[in-house]
Amino acid sequence: MSDTTRQSTSIQCEPLSEEEVQLTNAYWRAANYLSVGQIYLLDNPMLKEALTLEHVKPRLLGHWGTTPGLNFIYVHLNRVIKRDDLSMIYLAGPGHGGPGLVANTYLEGTYSEFYPNISQDAEGMKKLFRQFSFPGGIPSHVAPETPGSIHEGGELGYVLSHAFGAVLDNPDLIAACVVGDGEAETGPLATAWHSNKFLNPVSDGVVLPILHLNGYKIANPAVLSRISHDELEKLFIGYGYKPYFVEGSEPEAMHQKMAATMETVVAEIKTIQQEARVHVSRVRPRWPMIVLRSPKGWTGPKEVDGKKAEDYWRSHQVPFGNLATQPGHLLLLEQWLKSYKPGELFDDNGALRKELAELAPEGERRMGANPHANGGALLKDLIMPDYRNYALDVTHPGQSTDEATRAMGKLLRDVMKLNAKAKNFRVFGPDETASNRLGALFEVTNRAWQAETLPEDEYLATDGRVMEILSEHTCQGWLEGYLLTGRHGLFSCYEAFIHIIDSMFNQHAKWLKVTSKEIPWRRPIASLNYLLTSHVWRQDHNGFSHQDPGFIDHVVNKKADVIRVYLPPDANTLLCVSDKCLRSKNLVNVIVAGKQPQLQWLSMDAAIKHCSVGIGIWEWASNDRGGEPDVLMACAGDVPTLEILAAVDLLRQHLPELKVRVINVVDLMTLQPQSEHPHGLPDKDFDALFPANTPVIFAYHGYPWLIHRLTYRRLCHHHLHVRGYKEEGTTTTPFDMAVLNDLDRFHLVEDVIDQLPKLGADAAYIKQLMRDKLIEHKNYIVQYGEDMAEIRDWKWSPR
Amino acid sequence: MSDTTRQSTSIQCEPLSEEEVQLTNAYWRAANYLSVGQIYLLDNPMLKEALTLEHVKPRLLGHWGTTPGLNFIYVHLNRVIKRDDLSMIYLAGPGHGGPGLVANTYLEGTYSEFYPNISQDAEGMKKLFRQFSFPGGIPSHVAPETPGSIHEGGELGYVLSHAFGAVLDNPDLIAACVVGDGEAETGPLATAWHSNKFLNPVSDGVVLPILHLNGYKIANPAVLSRISHDELEKLFIGYGYKPYFVEGSEPEAMHQKMAATMETVVAEIKTIQQEARVHVSRVRPRWPMIVLRSPKGWTGPKEVDGKKAEDYWRSHQVPFGNLATQPGHLLLLEQWLKSYKPGELFDDNGALRKELAELAPEGERRMGANPHANGGALLKDLIMPDYRNYALDVTHPGQSTDEATRAMGKLLRDVMKLNAKAKNFRVFGPDETASNRLGALFEVTNRAWQAETLPEDEYLATDGRVMEILSEHTCQGWLEGYLLTGRHGLFSCYEAFIHIIDSMFNQHAKWLKVTSKEIPWRRPIASLNYLLTSHVWRQDHNGFSHQDPGFIDHVVNKKADVIRVYLPPDANTLLCVSDKCLRSKNLVNVIVAGKQPQLQWLSMDAAIKHCSVGIGIWEWASNDRGGEPDVLMACAGDVPTLEILAAVDLLRQHLPELKVRVINVVDLMTLQPQSEHPHGLPDKDFDALFPANTPVIFAYHGYPWLIHRLTYRRLCHHHLHVRGYKEEGTTTTPFDMAVLNDLDRFHLVEDVIDQLPKLGADAAYIKQLMRDKLIEHKNYIVQYGEDMAEIRDWKWSPR
Repeated sequence: MSDTTRQSTSIQCEPLSEEEVQLTNAYWRAANYLSVGQIYLLDNPMLKEALTLEHVKPRLLGHWGTTPGLNFIYVHLNRVIKRDDLSMIYLAGPGHGGPGLVANTYLEGTYSEFYPNISQDAEGMKKLFRQFSFPGGIPSHVAPETPGSIHEGGELGYVLSHAFGAVLDNPDLIAACVVGDGEAETGPLATAWHSNKFLNPVSDGVVLPILHLNGYKIANPAVLSRISHDELEKLFIGYGYKPYFVEGSEPEAMHQKMAATMETVVAEIKTIQQEARVHVSRVRPRWPMIVLRSPKGWTGPKEVDGKKAEDYWRSHQVPFGNLATQPGHLLLLEQWLKSYKPGELFDDNGALRKELAELAPEGERRMGANPHANGGALLKDLIMPDYRNYALDVTHPGQSTDEATRAMGKLLRDVMKLNAKAKNFRVFGPDETASNRLGALFEVTNRAWQAETLPEDEYLATDGRVMEILSEHTCQGWLEGYLLTGRHGLFSCYEAFIHIIDSMFNQHAKWLKVTSKEIPWRRPIASLNYLLTSHVWRQDHNGFSHQDPGFIDHVVNKKADVIRVYLPPDANTLLCVSDKCLRSKNLVNVIVAGKQPQLQWLSMDAAIKHCSVGIGIWEWASNDRGGEPDVLMACAGDVPTLEILAAVDLLRQHLPELKVRVINVVDLMTLQPQSEHPHGLPDKDFDALFPANTPVIFAYHGYPWLIHRLTYRRLCHHHLHVRGYKEEGTTTTPFDMAVLNDLDRFHLVEDVIDQLPKLGADAAYIKQLMRDKLIEHKNYIVQYGEDMAEIRDWKWSPR
Repeated sequence: MSDTTRQSTSIQCEPLSEEEVQLTNAYWRAANYLSVGQIYLLDNPMLKEALTLEHVKPRLLGHWGTTPGLNFIYVHLNRVIKRDDLSMIYLAGPGHGGPGLVANTYLEGTYSEFYPNISQDAEGMKKLFRQFSFPGGIPSHVAPETPGSIHEGGELGYVLSHAFGAVLDNPDLIAACVVGDGEAETGPLATAWHSNKFLNPVSDGVVLPILHLNGYKIANPAVLSRISHDELEKLFIGYGYKPYFVEGSEPEAMHQKMAATMETVVAEIKTIQQEARVHVSRVRPRWPMIVLRSPKGWTGPKEVDGKKAEDYWRSHQVPFGNLATQPGHLLLLEQWLKSYKPGELFDDNGALRKELAELAPEGERRMGANPHANGGALLKDLIMPDYRNYALDVTHPGQSTDEATRAMGKLLRDVMKLNAKAKNFRVFGPDETASNRLGALFEVTNRAWQAETLPEDEYLATDGRVMEILSEHTCQGWLEGYLLTGRHGLFSCYEAFIHIIDSMFNQHAKWLKVTSKEIPWRRPIASLNYLLTSHVWRQDHNGFSHQDPGFIDHVVNKKADVIRVYLPPDANTLLCVSDKCLRSKNLVNVIVAGKQPQLQWLSMDAAIKHCSVGIGIWEWASNDRGGEPDVLMACAGDVPTLEILAAVDLLRQHLPELKVRVINVVDLMTLQPQSEHPHGLPDKDFDALFPANTPVIFAYHGYPWLIHRLTYRRLCHHHLHVRGYKEEGTTTTPFDMAVLNDLDRFHLVEDVIDQLPKLGADAAYIKQLMRDKLIEHKNYIVQYGEDMAEIRDWKWSPR
């Protein structure tokens, strides 16, 4: 391969003086020493006494295997940060290597600044060791508690998309992103490499991926460590990178290689940025990456009980335990710790020696102190337009038809425009911004796109602020990285397929729970906003496999403090809710709203009033004024609202004496008691809406039992009859979907009659009428392929 | 690049005679004609009359864009199947191209065999058109209704892992696997390419991936269609394949290229298999794949209303609608349909002309009739050992300690051994078979591994039957493919991270619901069995991010007919449950069981009796015989069972007069009414266990509200008080995890006292005692880092 086409390499020069090698290695030894100490030691942190069992933790917990590699990378990043005055953050894909990141932030001083009781002396070191994976202490991972972390790394797969999200609109930031060879096998990671086709070298920063091949997972070799060099190299060239290889195990040689490679890749990053920013190159850059091949459990015991440990999977967690029962083990631990020569690294007080401390960057250049990793500190509120300006003109309920998300699209367009200068708002989605009717965004921005373009392309640009890739994982990961570094965003997605990121939502919600309640120095970040559209009731093109409203159920399992669920029934309520969500902090907001043309119910004034409580009586649809209602018709979601109102219309027609109260729920969490959720309606107010002994027919957007779950402590619960999606569906008409799940107007009228035995003979006749209607509907659709005109064209008629 | 290192190519020769080109093209035109007909036509299937609006569907639904490419591939697969007598199945990643697969199975005759009313004549063709995406008809995707399908293709990402699962242990099978360029962006797909490191060329079949670059998703270009040829080629060489390129749009030239390429890749597959099977080569093969670059909406209208349609995203769904309002559109449709010259393709009766019909393979060689795609028809029951042989010797409840999953591992080992000859059982998991204590499996088999090996490797072999890759998506996809083709398996996983495949479970459960209830020719397949271990209560090494018991909640949203959830409290109950699950069909079985050493409760006889109902009174722990109990202590899950019994022990000690009944639940679905779930306990029996007015303290493994949801129609529900996981946790001691979530013995005793106001002053004293114990516990763990001996060493003491 000639030099001109050279796409990968390993660097041969030796940039470090002998002294620098020794200092660099000493710093690394210090980090390794502190890492082993955290896993094993309760006391005797400086090994000033002979090690005894009393100095060792009774339960040995943590992961050693990945840690020395993480430490090795940290010390070399420190070196280039200092040398070239770089702004860098460190994302550890193998986040279970928590001891390494804690050790390094302690060495550079940031740990003690955030946690003054963990001081930089022997007493602090003892506490540092003791607290790790210890009751009342800190978690074993690179958790929110760790300074400099925006990535806990517990569930593998997301480090690369987090890193790319972090550098968007941060042109001076470099996110060093360590990808473990285990994590590299996950799907989300395997596709996140393609994020380089969306990164703008002018206005975004850069991700420096460091693929760490240490060969093994828990008990298995890793795939990428067992393919040929040729395949590995081609794979990453194919992904669009220029891979540099740093391979070996002899520390001094490895320091030289890593230092030289770091210098080269940083220079290359600067050259690419120069080309793009000064010379306005339009070529997609081939960003550098590093492949670091080093032993698992590097510098740990070579063998334990005669079995290979270093450079093998047995070093994955704690390489050896049983110190009380296996006498050799205590000695092995002592020898291991002493191999780092702590006396050379720390002074008598336990402070890092000055010549080593000087290797770390200073102030906010320290990776533990880089403000991007505490995004809330950088967060600026969005400049919000007045959402009332986008109101649809709804003079009478249920007369006009419109697409709710199209109105929201105009609001988003202006949010985008007003914050264009601040560059702190982006919209994410798999491929559906236009199809979800948010196309107004393309009046003011484009889709981000760095790959090839063709003349016929529309709305693609290198500086586009709409992020679309057909990977819900990548969208979610980018958005999380963007939010965690202090910006704002929205993820719009097919409702059924948001389950793809269930587990990512879990991790983000857990992060928010911990940061918002337990870590005061973590400043609030913008909420993670979901718009779930193309929902269960309108899968006209797709059918059964695209029908799943269960993300709401999944979300409400997480801490009430951090989750919100909204089901706006029309455009004006959707605008109110969107405004609220985009202004909020430290939450996950789930908005479910259809994109199809549908009847509009509330004027903007009415919508504001309705959304301010989140639940309320629709007086204009009710006829129970001045008396107790006979029945409550409650609804949450756009299609259920339509069917409830159509059912009320039928009731008015056929049972005009019946007193009906209509309640609409926008904010689902109002249903829970206030003790369970901050938005829960006080019992008094709830009971005023839902009298204890009045039957309630509740039409709900999702799986019906969620309404039971949310209301089981409410007095009305004994008389609650819920309809919702019950996994019945196929490719059929919109109304038939409701029929298949007994959520349609005719079934709802039947439900009312079933709940009110006092209605007598008249009711039986009406029930038969409803059944006849259902038969008529079925016959009609099978013959004509669409719903009957009386259903398609139904409008609310105030009687 | 020299020939010896040539790793990819495009074939230049022209193997088809002019007549063969014309015939092949005519067959393709027929498939395309039938596809367009399905999307648009209600009547006039042969266009014998001039097309009018009455002939066109009122609602136009479906996806045209991908369909002609799928049809093109089908006709060329047919050709090599027939030529080389191959056994092939067809997996369409872009499953929304349903019309194409329906058209092809209709042309080859299989469709009419499964659905005789859709006959191969004009009347049948009319029905074929009408039923597509039509009420009462068939779904728009390659759904279970489609002959030859094992992959619905609705949610993108899984086609490649499904294909690899299908060919495991099917040495003569070739799975042609079309990967859309949209789907290729998903994470699960991006990592599934690595499945080639797990495929044994001797005893497994082969997957022929066909990456279909048609350039566009819904409204966007696709990433892989917009990178350079060099990158694309290197990417797939990096993934370990030998890519062949077939690129163009001119049909005749494309037929020649595709035919030549198909011949080449089939020959290459045979050569590789020969090398491995006859010459016993141990080199990991570089399997061929095809990159097909053809226009989206190929042969469709070039432009619609002056805008580009063919070869553009506008052909994704229905290229044009509004036939009633846009007069030109009806004519455009007629011209489009006529461009395929149906009169040349079908005879006057609407039957495919004989010379075309002869191009299709015959009998079970037709891809719509290949028995592997109706796996239930091939399914053989597992030969099961007597699970009682693996019983732990439990003479007294709660005296001895053991690891439940280790006992299960021995059962699995012998299942593996007994079915070694049948080769129809495999175990799947991310990297945890050993760490989940299922290591006995390695006495009789190994992990499948085709990548490089080192001398120190353990339990890796090319013919291993344990499938481990650190991708839950790939594990799930492989297993689904394996089950759908008529084999058996088990997926063992960290409980928290099974959420990674939430959406895949959804799709499989939906497939089972449809096939088991609505498609009689689909024969029952083996159940999908999950073992969730390393569960929420024992994340000693990992903490909060690894704690999530919500998969159960997710699962119970699906149809009761297809889901089962088991929480065996100890080893012998786990053995009973495992036996039951491995024998079952058409279900998803979720087993949650810890891997840590824990007290054992039931002898095998007692376990069998207990599991036969799935719920029952533990008499030996109860003291309410001959009277009404004062309180019920119910539990589901191993840790909750332990804590309930320890609480009962405390109650006996401090309140010996209190009548306590202990109920354990193994089969969670017994809690639901029989009307909701087939395993639901009849109300009479349930009320006998749980008297309507006795307070129940229920300690549950997962989120507590699920118990409310399952029991809300039961009489006892008003007195039900549930403890479970409430998102509190960190890296702490095992007992402290229970304390953090109020599920521990001390809190449970407090709960009992709170529910029984009649207990009076004595009780207040005991409550204080419990609070003191909790403080003592906290103080102890913070000082010593482990639980108090009295907790660690607690055993059940019959009083």
